[in-house]
Amino acid sequence: MSLLVVGTVAFDEIETPLGKTGRILGGAGTYVGLAASHLIQDINMSAVVGGDFPQKYLDLFSKRGIDIDGIDVIKDKKSFYWSGRYHNNMNQRDTLATELNVLAGFDPELPENYRDSRYLMLGNLTPSIQRKVIEQMNRRPQLICMDTMNFWMDTAWDDLLEVVSMVDVLAVNEEEARQLSGKYSLVQAACKIQSMGPKYIIVKRGEYGALLFHGEHKFYAPAMPLDTVVDPTGAGDSFAGGFMGYLTRQNDISFESMKNALIYGAALASFSVEKFGTERLLEITKEDIQDRLIEFVKMMSFSI
Amino acid sequence: MSLLVVGTVAFDEIETPLGKTGRILGGAGTYVGLAASHLIQDINMSAVVGGDFPQKYLDLFSKRGIDIDGIDVIKDKKSFYWSGRYHNNMNQRDTLATELNVLAGFDPELPENYRDSRYLMLGNLTPSIQRKVIEQMNRRPQLICMDTMNFWMDTAWDDLLEVVSMVDVLAVNEEEARQLSGKYSLVQAACKIQSMGPKYIIVKRGEYGALLFHGEHKFYAPAMPLDTVVDPTGAGDSFAGGFMGYLTRQNDISFESMKNALIYGAALASFSVEKFGTERLLEITKEDIQDRLIEFVKMMSFSI
Repeated sequence: MSLLVVGTVAFDEIETPLGKTGRILGGAGTYVGLAASHLIQDINMSAVVGGDFPQKYLDLFSKRGIDIDGIDVIKDKKSFYWSGRYHNNMNQRDTLATELNVLAGFDPELPENYRDSRYLMLGNLTPSIQRKVIEQMNRRPQLICMDTMNFWMDTAWDDLLEVVSMVDVLAVNEEEARQLSGKYSLVQAACKIQSMGPKYIIVKRGEYGALLFHGEHKFYAPAMPLDTVVDPTGAGDSFAGGFMGYLTRQNDISFESMKNALIYGAALASFSVEKFGTERLLEITKEDIQDRLIEFVKMMSFSI
Repeated sequence: MSLLVVGTVAFDEIETPLGKTGRILGGAGTYVGLAASHLIQDINMSAVVGGDFPQKYLDLFSKRGIDIDGIDVIKDKKSFYWSGRYHNNMNQRDTLATELNVLAGFDPELPENYRDSRYLMLGNLTPSIQRKVIEQMNRRPQLICMDTMNFWMDTAWDDLLEVVSMVDVLAVNEEEARQLSGKYSLVQAACKIQSMGPKYIIVKRGEYGALLFHGEHKFYAPAMPLDTVVDPTGAGDSFAGGFMGYLTRQNDISFESMKNALIYGAALASFSVEKFGTERLLEITKEDIQDRLIEFVKMMSFSI
C-alpha cells in the first residue's frame, strides 16, 4: 500500500534551552515522511521548495523510499522558513520568524502515479488546498487523515468545515479540538466533531500523549517520559507519520489497528524529540523502534 | 489489613463554572478515606475537627467502616475551612479563603489500636507532623505513602527531606516533583527523589493521569476523559484513597500490584470529579467501579 503525504518541506532554525541549530531540514511533510519511512517504503510526497533547497535533502528522501516527483522545486524562489525559540519547559515556544516564500503559492498538482495512493495524510495547510488534493485522487483513499490549526478556524472557517467533512481522521491538539467544536470537554468535543464528518478524532496532548475517539470507543496513548527532551519540533508530525505509516503497512483501519497505530505514532514522536530536528529520526533502527514499543507495552500493561 | 489515613477533615466551599456549593464536607483525609472505603472496611482516620463539625458527617464515616476514634473534636474551636473558585478550564483555581482554625494546633496522638495499621497514608500536612505519626507506629507499616506540597518546600525544607526519607511512596504533582528534585525531566526528577528515600514516585498530572516510577520501571495511568467535570476538588486525594485502598486490600506491594492500584486510584478520582464535593464518591456502587475499571482496560489495551 502507498501513503501520500502532503505537507511542508522547509528550513527550520530552532533554539531550545539545550542549544540552537543553524538552518536545518524541517517541515511537517518532512517529519511525517521520515517517520513513516521506518514502516513503509511506498511514500509519495507532495510539497514545494525553493531553489535554495539542497539536493542532498531530496536525495535523503529518495534513499528512504520517499518518492519526490511531487516535490515542486521553484528555482527562483526561496523555501518556506520557520524559526522558533522554546521556553524552559519546552511546552511553549515563540515564533521568531515565518517566511512563507514558495509556500504562499503552493497549489499541488499531483503526479499521476500519486493519485491512486490508498492512504492520505494531509499536513496542516490552507483548507482549500487540502480539499483540492482530495479531489485530485483517482478514487477515494482507504483512509484520509488531516491536521489543521486554529489559524484556519479564525480565517477560513467555511473552507475548513468543508474539508473536515471529507476526511476520516482529524488530528488536532486540545485547544484546536475545543475551538473547532465549541466544547470544552474533550469527550463532548470529539462527539461534536464526529458529527462534522471525521469518524476518528485524535487529540494530541504533547508530553501527555494522545487520545483517540471513535463513537463510544476511546484509547489513550501516553507519551513516553524521556530522560531529556532536546527539541519538540516535529513531534506531532512524527506522531502522524508513525500512525499513518503503520495503518498503510497493515492496510487495516479497524479500531484495534488504529490503537496500535497510535502507539507507533507515540514511539516515533518520542524519538523525534531526543535530538534536534530530524537527526534522531534519521539514525534510529528497526531494533530501536522495537525496543521502544516494548517500553510502551510495559508502561501500559496491567492485569486487574 | 488496615489502612491508617492522616489528613484534613474539613469544610469546603466551592465554586466552579457549573455551580457553587455552600459549606460542605471536604478535606484530604475525607476524600482518601471515602475513596478507600469502597475497597476496604478497616480504615483508621486521624484528624481534627471543631465543635461546628456535624455529627452526621462523623456518623457517615462510621457507617462506611471508617474508625473515627482518632478524630479529635475540639469543641470550642472551628473546623478547618477552605473556599475556592475554579476557572473555566477547571485546571486552575483561586483560593478565596483558608481558615486553619483547629488545624493550626493539629498534633495527632494516635489511638493505641491505630498503631498497628499495616498501611499508612499521610495526607499533605506539616512535615514534622507527618514524621511524628510515623514515629508513633508500633512497627513500621508495610507501606507508607505521603503527599506534600510546594509550600513545605519553601518553608520547611529540612523537615520535609527528613520525612521524605522515611516513606516508600511519594505522591506529588509535576511542579512539586520538579521543585523537590531540582530536575525538569520527570524521569530525572523521579530518579533524584528515589535517592532521597522513597522507592516509588507517583507524579499526579490531573486530567492527564498519573505516572508511577520505580527504579527502571514506569507505568502510566491515564485519567478517564469524562463528559463533564463538575468539581475537581479532592481528585488527587480520591486517587490516593483508591491507590492505598487497593494495596491494603491485596496486601501486595509488588510493582504489578502497584500498577493495578494506580488504575483503582484513577477510577476513584474519575468518579470524584463528576459531582460537587464527596457526593459522587458516596453514591457509587461496586458495579459502578467495576464498569469504570473495564473502561480503563479498554482505553489502555492494545496488542502489537
